[in-house]
Amino acid sequence: MPKDSLDNLNTRLKTFAQTRNWEQFHDPKNLSMALIAECAELVEHFQWLTPEQSMNLPPEKHDEVALEMADILIYLIRCAERLDINLVDAAYRKIGINEARYPTDKVYGDARRASEYDKD
Amino acid sequence: MPKDSLDNLNTRLKTFAQTRNWEQFHDPKNLSMALIAECAELVEHFQWLTPEQSMNLPPEKHDEVALEMADILIYLIRCAERLDINLVDAAYRKIGINEARYPTDKVYGDARRASEYDKD
Amino acid sequence: MPKDSLDNLNTRLKTFAQTRNWEQFHDPKNLSMALIAECAELVEHFQWLTPEQSMNLPPEKHDEVALEMADILIYLIRCAERLDINLVDAAYRKIGINEARYPTDKVYGDARRASEYDKD
Amino acid sequence: MPKDSLDNLNTRLKTFAQTRNWEQFHDPKNLSMALIAECAELVEHFQWLTPEQSMNLPPEKHDEVALEMADILIYLIRCAERLDINLVDAAYRKIGINEARYPTDKVYGDARRASEYDKD
Repeated sequence: MPKDSLDNLNTRLKTFAQTRNWEQFHDPKNLSMALIAECAELVEHFQWLTPEQSMNLPPEKHDEVALEMADILIYLIRCAERLDINLVDAAYRKIGINEARYPTDKVYGDARRASEYDKD
Repeated sequence: MPKDSLDNLNTRLKTFAQTRNWEQFHDPKNLSMALIAECAELVEHFQWLTPEQSMNLPPEKHDEVALEMADILIYLIRCAERLDINLVDAAYRKIGINEARYPTDKVYGDARRASEYDKD
Repeated sequence: MPKDSLDNLNTRLKTFAQTRNWEQFHDPKNLSMALIAECAELVEHFQWLTPEQSMNLPPEKHDEVALEMADILIYLIRCAERLDINLVDAAYRKIGINEARYPTDKVYGDARRASEYDKD
Repeated sequence: MPKDSLDNLNTRLKTFAQTRNWEQFHDPKNLSMALIAECAELVEHFQWLTPEQSMNLPPEKHDEVALEMADILIYLIRCAERLDINLVDAAYRKIGINEARYPTDKVYGDARRASEYDKD
């Protein structure tokens, strides 16, 4: 039976870290820092663009953005592995929470933070 | 044939946004902001912990951390969908780049940023 | 009477943006993105260091870190200017709030997030 | 002679940390994490707003934003103090670098990252 893509990536990334003797640096504290630094490189691509421009990237920038997003996924998988967290299970659990927190009829077409709805 | 976990999550998340008429807010610029805000909530869990403590979270905190990581994956998938980026392909491409950039014998046990190796 | 250092920096930075016709890009949304991207460059310097190493930077790295922190201050001042916020007044107001929220006898030697104390 | 506002804030914040025995947590690594977490709270305020909306905040949100920016300044000052960095000097030094890197006639009305101009 084929393993899932996230499992395969996880195995590959763990090997990458182990063969370089880098697991000693890969505690969740450090990995969360690397993760947010990669996110910021994504943000940087969009900071002076209009929302519309961010939807329509020229090919070279689209490719750079894809690789930044890859970095984010890579560190996210590494961090999950170190904490023995199943990302997919956690995501489904969080989606369930969000579906309850943001009922369709209450939030239709109105995006705010949960805390801001609570003030209503 | 079973679809991959990331594909399934993507479908579920797209439906979540569409039924709430939230796709209008989900351009890559905005999503990159939501993504980094979620990363920061992860960072916040670790900011006053030692690296060792970050490896050994008490159960309640471990659970909160899992849900923060879920949020990161959720926004990452949403952003990739809006830009028509295949995250898994991009990750394998980036791993290939990293394997070339950080040859095992050069970086063994020594984690720095690529730019810092270049100075050697 | 000499003006304060933050006022002087503010004037200099506003002129810098205006002479380049960049104020059109300097809305708070965009500036908050530039600001967090600069913060991430600071984080990146420390991500693989131990806490102790981060206190004792070699001179070249110390200098790079100083310039990253300068970038953060620069975008913070720009963002405050666009929103007509007095940073120093806001900081004193926030310190007052923090002094009330974290009474010395309750939090002595114990750093957690406010929400975590509330659970006690 | 009156001391500068940043010097006064620095003294107040150092006392705040010392009386709570929190300096043990305030190494630059940890402080950079706290700093970026505060930046993200600012970003969160703007993530679903248009650039125009971010320029015109309702009073309550304007006030919350001011306090988020205060938090950023507070951690920036703390981090500078721990590293013995003079923020104002560093800012003037960085402005000089930026003035040379972005000559008015080359970048007029065109905001990109330095690396993107270099490709021209």
